[in-house]
Amino acid sequence: MASIIEFRRALHQIPELAFHETQTQAYVLQTLRNMGWDPRPIAGTGVVVDIDSGRPGPTVMFRADMDGLPLTEETGLAFASRHPGVMHACGHDGHMAILLGLAERLAEGAPFQGRVRLAFQPAEERPPGGALQMIEAGVLDGVDEVYGLHLWAGFPVGTIGLRPGPMMANADEFRIVVTGRGGHGSQPEATADAVLLASQIVVNLQTIVSRRVPALEPAVVTCGTIQGGHTFNIIAERAEITGTVRTFSAETQALVRQEMAHIARTTALLYGADAELVYNPGYPALINAEEPTRRWQARLREWATVVEPEPSMGGEDFAYYLHHRPGAFLFLGARPDVEYPHHSPHFQINEDALALGVEAFWNVIRA
Amino acid sequence: MASIIEFRRALHQIPELAFHETQTQAYVLQTLRNMGWDPRPIAGTGVVVDIDSGRPGPTVMFRADMDGLPLTEETGLAFASRHPGVMHACGHDGHMAILLGLAERLAEGAPFQGRVRLAFQPAEERPPGGALQMIEAGVLDGVDEVYGLHLWAGFPVGTIGLRPGPMMANADEFRIVVTGRGGHGSQPEATADAVLLASQIVVNLQTIVSRRVPALEPAVVTCGTIQGGHTFNIIAERAEITGTVRTFSAETQALVRQEMAHIARTTALLYGADAELVYNPGYPALINAEEPTRRWQARLREWATVVEPEPSMGGEDFAYYLHHRPGAFLFLGARPDVEYPHHSPHFQINEDALALGVEAFWNVIRA
Amino acid sequence: MASIIEFRRALHQIPELAFHETQTQAYVLQTLRNMGWDPRPIAGTGVVVDIDSGRPGPTVMFRADMDGLPLTEETGLAFASRHPGVMHACGHDGHMAILLGLAERLAEGAPFQGRVRLAFQPAEERPPGGALQMIEAGVLDGVDEVYGLHLWAGFPVGTIGLRPGPMMANADEFRIVVTGRGGHGSQPEATADAVLLASQIVVNLQTIVSRRVPALEPAVVTCGTIQGGHTFNIIAERAEITGTVRTFSAETQALVRQEMAHIARTTALLYGADAELVYNPGYPALINAEEPTRRWQARLREWATVVEPEPSMGGEDFAYYLHHRPGAFLFLGARPDVEYPHHSPHFQINEDALALGVEAFWNVIRA
Amino acid sequence: MASIIEFRRALHQIPELAFHETQTQAYVLQTLRNMGWDPRPIAGTGVVVDIDSGRPGPTVMFRADMDGLPLTEETGLAFASRHPGVMHACGHDGHMAILLGLAERLAEGAPFQGRVRLAFQPAEERPPGGALQMIEAGVLDGVDEVYGLHLWAGFPVGTIGLRPGPMMANADEFRIVVTGRGGHGSQPEATADAVLLASQIVVNLQTIVSRRVPALEPAVVTCGTIQGGHTFNIIAERAEITGTVRTFSAETQALVRQEMAHIARTTALLYGADAELVYNPGYPALINAEEPTRRWQARLREWATVVEPEPSMGGEDFAYYLHHRPGAFLFLGARPDVEYPHHSPHFQINEDALALGVEAFWNVIRA
Repeated sequence: MASIIEFRRALHQIPELAFHETQTQAYVLQTLRNMGWDPRPIAGTGVVVDIDSGRPGPTVMFRADMDGLPLTEETGLAFASRHPGVMHACGHDGHMAILLGLAERLAEGAPFQGRVRLAFQPAEERPPGGALQMIEAGVLDGVDEVYGLHLWAGFPVGTIGLRPGPMMANADEFRIVVTGRGGHGSQPEATADAVLLASQIVVNLQTIVSRRVPALEPAVVTCGTIQGGHTFNIIAERAEITGTVRTFSAETQALVRQEMAHIARTTALLYGADAELVYNPGYPALINAEEPTRRWQARLREWATVVEPEPSMGGEDFAYYLHHRPGAFLFLGARPDVEYPHHSPHFQINEDALALGVEAFWNVIRA
Repeated sequence: MASIIEFRRALHQIPELAFHETQTQAYVLQTLRNMGWDPRPIAGTGVVVDIDSGRPGPTVMFRADMDGLPLTEETGLAFASRHPGVMHACGHDGHMAILLGLAERLAEGAPFQGRVRLAFQPAEERPPGGALQMIEAGVLDGVDEVYGLHLWAGFPVGTIGLRPGPMMANADEFRIVVTGRGGHGSQPEATADAVLLASQIVVNLQTIVSRRVPALEPAVVTCGTIQGGHTFNIIAERAEITGTVRTFSAETQALVRQEMAHIARTTALLYGADAELVYNPGYPALINAEEPTRRWQARLREWATVVEPEPSMGGEDFAYYLHHRPGAFLFLGARPDVEYPHHSPHFQINEDALALGVEAFWNVIRA
Repeated sequence: MASIIEFRRALHQIPELAFHETQTQAYVLQTLRNMGWDPRPIAGTGVVVDIDSGRPGPTVMFRADMDGLPLTEETGLAFASRHPGVMHACGHDGHMAILLGLAERLAEGAPFQGRVRLAFQPAEERPPGGALQMIEAGVLDGVDEVYGLHLWAGFPVGTIGLRPGPMMANADEFRIVVTGRGGHGSQPEATADAVLLASQIVVNLQTIVSRRVPALEPAVVTCGTIQGGHTFNIIAERAEITGTVRTFSAETQALVRQEMAHIARTTALLYGADAELVYNPGYPALINAEEPTRRWQARLREWATVVEPEPSMGGEDFAYYLHHRPGAFLFLGARPDVEYPHHSPHFQINEDALALGVEAFWNVIRA
Repeated sequence: MASIIEFRRALHQIPELAFHETQTQAYVLQTLRNMGWDPRPIAGTGVVVDIDSGRPGPTVMFRADMDGLPLTEETGLAFASRHPGVMHACGHDGHMAILLGLAERLAEGAPFQGRVRLAFQPAEERPPGGALQMIEAGVLDGVDEVYGLHLWAGFPVGTIGLRPGPMMANADEFRIVVTGRGGHGSQPEATADAVLLASQIVVNLQTIVSRRVPALEPAVVTCGTIQGGHTFNIIAERAEITGTVRTFSAETQALVRQEMAHIARTTALLYGADAELVYNPGYPALINAEEPTRRWQARLREWATVVEPEPSMGGEDFAYYLHHRPGAFLFLGARPDVEYPHHSPHFQINEDALALGVEAFWNVIRA
């Protein structure tokens, strides 16, 4: 099944940011058509294709996400990104390759039951994400169960993480806009220095997780970017912080949001200035349904090492599908020789995992 | 002398960043030629013109700086900047108008002695500044004394600040490059968060002035910009701070530089990361020569209120000319109805000051 | 059974700090002797008494802790502490009263099986705690199972928290000694200010939980005291921080310890000073044994609401007994009308809980 | 004149804190009586003695301060402090010895004019200081001029610092009382941690000097002590910071005071807690009168190196005498082989300076 690797490498070279997956869409459409299927665009840059076994049985949807990340690839791979500043640094290229591999296996006549829907979804990385648009576009119409997976550098190839219940965290986005008073770099006493103020906010935000959230409630507050000022010798009037919050419960999510707003505003008050929190709730926690998870675990244990991992703090908009349909989502071990974290410019996967991904999905529907 | 205001408003609309003053240069050249003088370009975008009285006497150079600042003007003036993101927010437009006004007065035949050189210098705002290039290009050849001024929103029109000795501070530029380890926004434990780290550096730098420099040694450490990370949900691998340092002595300058490097590096060590200081010494302290200052003060007192102000923390590359030639530099009161600090997007001057600027220079050379 | 409340109020008035429970010991000894039992001192200020049913069966140990806390009571109760600066602010007075109540019930002839050992243990609040000394003194000799409980202001009366597995956290003690360079309050530049440095360490320690421990690993780092300097106008040469760390796994415990040492040392380096961490590992996590817990739960459910609570972050040296013998430890609901946290100077319990505590222990041994 | 050194060493061994200088007073009274003078107690633990030349001339007062500091001496000197925890670490022992030496010289018949008043003043180290009480007790009645000095480890023996105008700073005392909400060390989320809060206040106070006071206005904000919490595993309800502020102008003093109150209160707000500033204005700036200073300088230059030093940031309650009478105050070089800062437990002086101190005062009155 060498072609999965080809699919993945082709896609790896053309990473595109969320909702801009046009080359990716074209590649997926063409590849599916080459197999004889009849895919169609959906939700802008997404793709969906239905495959009917002709046999009775449920309609099962498999989903892959399509978007890359705003990173400059530093892997040195021969098939590295050809799009400057964009990279498949989370494995979505592999997710698509696995779905294409499944399509190929079905095209080759592998026997299954009921109907399969393959859903290629744009924009998993950027809330509100593409899942909601796919759902609005009807991707779940007629579907009985939904399944998905994520390549996982933290597990070796051959290990699969799958547990009933909470599997991934709430993942929210925030922006804090700091408005001070600018002025000449040599006269700070006449200003409210937005760079200093934003820095103090970043430092003060550490106390949310360290002091304000109960220790048994997992929470992460990450400031992903900071940006303030225009030139070295002018005291900045404005600065901006963006970041993400991860939690597992609505109470903790609400507590963090409230404390963030309070800390930002109160820190700004130290200088008689202002800081406003804009908070965009992102993906809800991903909860695997009990029965489909147990059923899938049983089949996977025939050939893989199945573990029940700690829930991941990462967000995943597959959660939305699971709000509407039973199903499950797993972590597919793909640790390379040298492991880098997901979202690193050095991120890689072990491509041996791709065939196991096809196998894992196949296990759901095999006759 | 209405035309000074016309000069100033024309120049105000075409602000250009340091070393890119091409439209400004063209305007100055053309205006001087219209008066019958024979100016020539110098030091890239600068302009110089010599005017001989035909009478014996010294050669006196007057200098105006030409560059604007990377700010978006928010004054709402009818003649506001037509160049997006660039603004004359420090009065250099007025400085040029004053020199043009002096040229006009001389063209009208006002009697003076010796020779006058009018020097329009690029790039005062950005060290290493344009003065050094002007000097290398020979602007001081044959010059006996040098004079300059700065429009000063802190004084009312009619007040002039001029003192012998230190008048303006050393003004240095620095950059701190923070190199952490990036990663997924939900897993800070696997990273060295460059946004947090840079923020802690900004906070820790406050202790230089508060605890490490003797209280009687004036010093300012300003972080003008901070920039880190690419997107909200990736922990940043890299961040950068830029800023300026103001001091009056070489010892304090060296102390601040050493402590900055130490604080940056040691704060980064908190996360096993790295932060490097790049320090560009800027303009030295501006020191007015005793005799020319006293002589000029005496003449100015005939019609203006002359005060001996505290030294300014702002840097000024006119200091270089004073390293080579006797002379002086003054602050020309220009407070508008509503005062905003220099380098603010709301900065304005009272245009009544412009005629007094011509008068002040005229006082140096009048027969 | 009014006398339990009398026991508790008598003990509440004579709180004593860890290992100094002499009046408390005398009261317990006398009360047991009044009932006709034959108690003996153990482990300094502890008390142990054996009661034999004469019937076959296991030997079951029940334990109460005896020490108060260094707090000035602010409850305004008629029976408030008569020992200035010491208070039973965690319920240990009630724990002893429950054991005395059980002794009284047995003295009244309630039928049970096997043998009962009542163990009154000094010094639960201060690691290394009194449990280790009790064990060295042989308190577990001949004992088959061990049981304990904690009054719990977080649950209403009638609710009991009991779960198999992890019930309470590791609880460690630490001290950070900061050594700077003192000097005159007006010349910070000649010093390394230990007060500022200790303050920065406290702030920097927040990043352990917020950034260095995985979000799914519960951890608390609390600085309970800070102390530095001798007088307002001398810059301090020395400061000291003490505190506690709570974790549930040896890996996280080791990580926190290592990061604390690193942060303390590196923050001190900002001033060329020194900070040393002294780390005293305290009580290990308290793990209830599966079988005795399930058995106890079943009996308690006959008359109480039994919940399986989240593990508590508080440490408890009952953990040591459970390292050597099977048994279990529960949280006994005792919420008063107005709830204050344990270890607050306003802490109170609902005394109705005391009789239920006797009942809970009785359930272990009833025939 | 060996006895000056004896005086100083005797006094060095019996340091006493402000307003408790009883042994010191007894020693001074007895020593003066032994010389044949008629001293009397004043202002509690002070001493005053009048000596009349019988010749016409002004009445000149010389003042020495008497108190030690709350430090444990670490000099290892044979004549080190015999009072645990108290030390003459600022040279007041030497100041008294110099006045006793002057008394001895006059007792030996050295010829002078007018009248001399020797004033030994309690409590210079602790505002409000002893000078105000001395003045209330009439020490200035009939006095025409006042003189004082301070041994100065920063200058070598033989160098004297004396300048007209500002010589020493305003020196104020402050206390910040932080009131949070205490609780169990493992549950920070239910508390407002006063130790963390006080630490953040200390860090945030750094921005007063670094960002809020103009760079040309000297200012120092020192937190001399911090104290919070009672035990390691209880989150503190209360913490306290004490410290000192040094400035040279009433405007800057007011600005610092206002910003401190604002920062304390606003930082506490981060946790919904409270922090109150108690601010005790201390000694005003010490301003030497022009004429007496010039006159004294002239005489001192005959045998010493007289420099005009930068003003000192240290406060000195001799300032009060100079508010009422003309006079001057100088710094008497006393650098030992190895220099430690004033107020260090290692502080020493070079005793050769003492005879020069007598000489310096003698120069004021010599015939």
